[in-house]
Amino acid sequence: MKLLKDANLPKGFIASGLHCGLKKSGKADLALFCSEVPARAACLFTVNKIQAAPISVSRKHLKASGYHQAIIVNSGNANCFTGPRGTSDALGVAKAVADVLGIKTKSVLVSSTGIIGRPLKVDKIKKAIPKLARSLSVKGIKQAKRAILTTDTFTKALSVKVKISGREVTICGVAKGSGMISPDMATMLGFIFTDADISKIILGKVLRAAVDESFNCITVDGCMSTNDTVTMLANGLAGNPLINSDKKAVLFKKALSLVCLELAKMIVKDGEGSSKFIQIKVAGAKTQGQAKRVGLTVANSNLVKTAIYAGNPNFGRIIAACGSSGAALNEKKLKVKVSPLKRKEVVIEINLNQGGGSSVIYTSDLTPKYIKINAEYN
Amino acid sequence: MKLLKDANLPKGFIASGLHCGLKKSGKADLALFCSEVPARAACLFTVNKIQAAPISVSRKHLKASGYHQAIIVNSGNANCFTGPRGTSDALGVAKAVADVLGIKTKSVLVSSTGIIGRPLKVDKIKKAIPKLARSLSVKGIKQAKRAILTTDTFTKALSVKVKISGREVTICGVAKGSGMISPDMATMLGFIFTDADISKIILGKVLRAAVDESFNCITVDGCMSTNDTVTMLANGLAGNPLINSDKKAVLFKKALSLVCLELAKMIVKDGEGSSKFIQIKVAGAKTQGQAKRVGLTVANSNLVKTAIYAGNPNFGRIIAACGSSGAALNEKKLKVKVSPLKRKEVVIEINLNQGGGSSVIYTSDLTPKYIKINAEYN
Repeated sequence: MKLLKDANLPKGFIASGLHCGLKKSGKADLALFCSEVPARAACLFTVNKIQAAPISVSRKHLKASGYHQAIIVNSGNANCFTGPRGTSDALGVAKAVADVLGIKTKSVLVSSTGIIGRPLKVDKIKKAIPKLARSLSVKGIKQAKRAILTTDTFTKALSVKVKISGREVTICGVAKGSGMISPDMATMLGFIFTDADISKIILGKVLRAAVDESFNCITVDGCMSTNDTVTMLANGLAGNPLINSDKKAVLFKKALSLVCLELAKMIVKDGEGSSKFIQIKVAGAKTQGQAKRVGLTVANSNLVKTAIYAGNPNFGRIIAACGSSGAALNEKKLKVKVSPLKRKEVVIEINLNQGGGSSVIYTSDLTPKYIKINAEYN
Repeated sequence: MKLLKDANLPKGFIASGLHCGLKKSGKADLALFCSEVPARAACLFTVNKIQAAPISVSRKHLKASGYHQAIIVNSGNANCFTGPRGTSDALGVAKAVADVLGIKTKSVLVSSTGIIGRPLKVDKIKKAIPKLARSLSVKGIKQAKRAILTTDTFTKALSVKVKISGREVTICGVAKGSGMISPDMATMLGFIFTDADISKIILGKVLRAAVDESFNCITVDGCMSTNDTVTMLANGLAGNPLINSDKKAVLFKKALSLVCLELAKMIVKDGEGSSKFIQIKVAGAKTQGQAKRVGLTVANSNLVKTAIYAGNPNFGRIIAACGSSGAALNEKKLKVKVSPLKRKEVVIEINLNQGGGSSVIYTSDLTPKYIKINAEYN
């Protein structure tokens, strides 16, 4: 298995990105990802009860068709809480992409990210789509990975190459996310492409498993987004024998988990205003679920995050957070260990000594810069 | 019913406060509250699974005796996660108070607040107790209300006088709290004194009801403390006919609710680093519980708090928080209204239009000063 620290699109994938006018800054705000042949898709969406219009359109298209070929993504506007107009806007964008590419509208998936509650300037997007389609290329991923960002300070992309039954398979992931990052869903926008030949059922299963241990184990500010989506396309062009069972998927799953986990860590490292990357390793819980709950409660404690920002080993705040998580624990058995706080990467080890459940949660510290970023964002 | 914006101790209550050496600042850190005659008590403690040693000692004393006469409180150290030594320290403090006052150890309740996980300097406390007892007086409440503070920037006390069956009854409450303030418990230290004659059962009931609608409806940072306690003593010296039924308790309950709510609001107004006082009025939820859940999720959203700090009416963040609360809602029916954000007091009105459940939650904004305070606190 070979890890490449950048986006290398798998066989048959092309992408492009440009500025269509949604971001005042003039930065790229529209991306298109395409497979030259129909691909199987798997998607995970936020569990927030308010869900953005592009999610409802993508859900519909996922139900309507077994194969998909394009993902259109805009940043700068979430197209969320925008009513029926929001849905018809998202559908209009999908249709415009389909028309230009000569594919069916239901083959197009849609994602948006940015401010919530404002109508999408859909005309600007539609006007830019022909140029966006013309720019599609393997190298276009460079523009595309930039065009999906909002408050992110760096792009997030990587690839894994793995030999499956003698054929080289590539998995390439790009993601965005920096604030409004909280778990129990696919916590951000993530797009993963592979040329592996893999059945739709197995693709969905391995993606869910990989996301549960990666994107669903990170938190920046405990705030759940309305637009979070992880979308994966598999076009089968690697020519490997079809992966259609759990057993055959072992190696692919391992590679995919690596892609998801590395992308998830990048999001935390780019956590709004963060100065430190924090790993919370919880062991000895009664169940894995309880371990995750303890880790997330500690990770979302403003008091713990502030103490770590300050390099102040206030372990009482960690103890208090463990106790408030609701997980079964016994004060006499609880052990907490914190690595030196002056370093950029901090490890908090919590052992409940109650059972065999464990989990690792990734988070960032809380700094005055987080407040500055979110006070000024609009 | 008459509201007095300061602590007027009811008949038969005296108090004192001084600096015994726990706070480096030299500020008062030890308080004693006494009833000259045995009083009925009601206590509510944090639901955090890690609970401080003084809570376990107080619980034991509440079980062992139906009447109590003294509450000893130290600030500067929470005596929490301090193992068996912590418990024997808290017990030792109670015994020292009992000896000096000539009462039984089980008549003494104990509270601590401050940093978690460090042994209590119990010798300093014990040494100061004789002087503390000598200083007991009606006016001593002035020192006592200061001695219970930690990061608070002002004292929190008030009194209500109410005529019950022709007799004047006084309810006086003092509280501390500024950070590590989150609901689902008695969220801070609160001490309430009354000269009303009220049965233990009814006292417990009205206190629980009053706390649920006041201290349990506030949040500063969503972080649940290990030491939170509301303790109430009723010594019966007002001479009113015994309040021993719900019906007879109506007026008393109203007065007590007022005391608790005003104290709770003071805690929020003194929220660490806060610049704004925020009321979140949730209506139209399926149940009162769901209304509270929505209100608390919005109140604990760092993104909402930061937007309000900045005077930035980012209502999308409120929408996203509503959707993540888990409460039943329908995007089409959801209405959100925010008062002008330039004012010191902000009202967020949320109507789910789903039913008759409503709740009001009180919180503060999140500012760079919160981070400064908690980065430096140790």
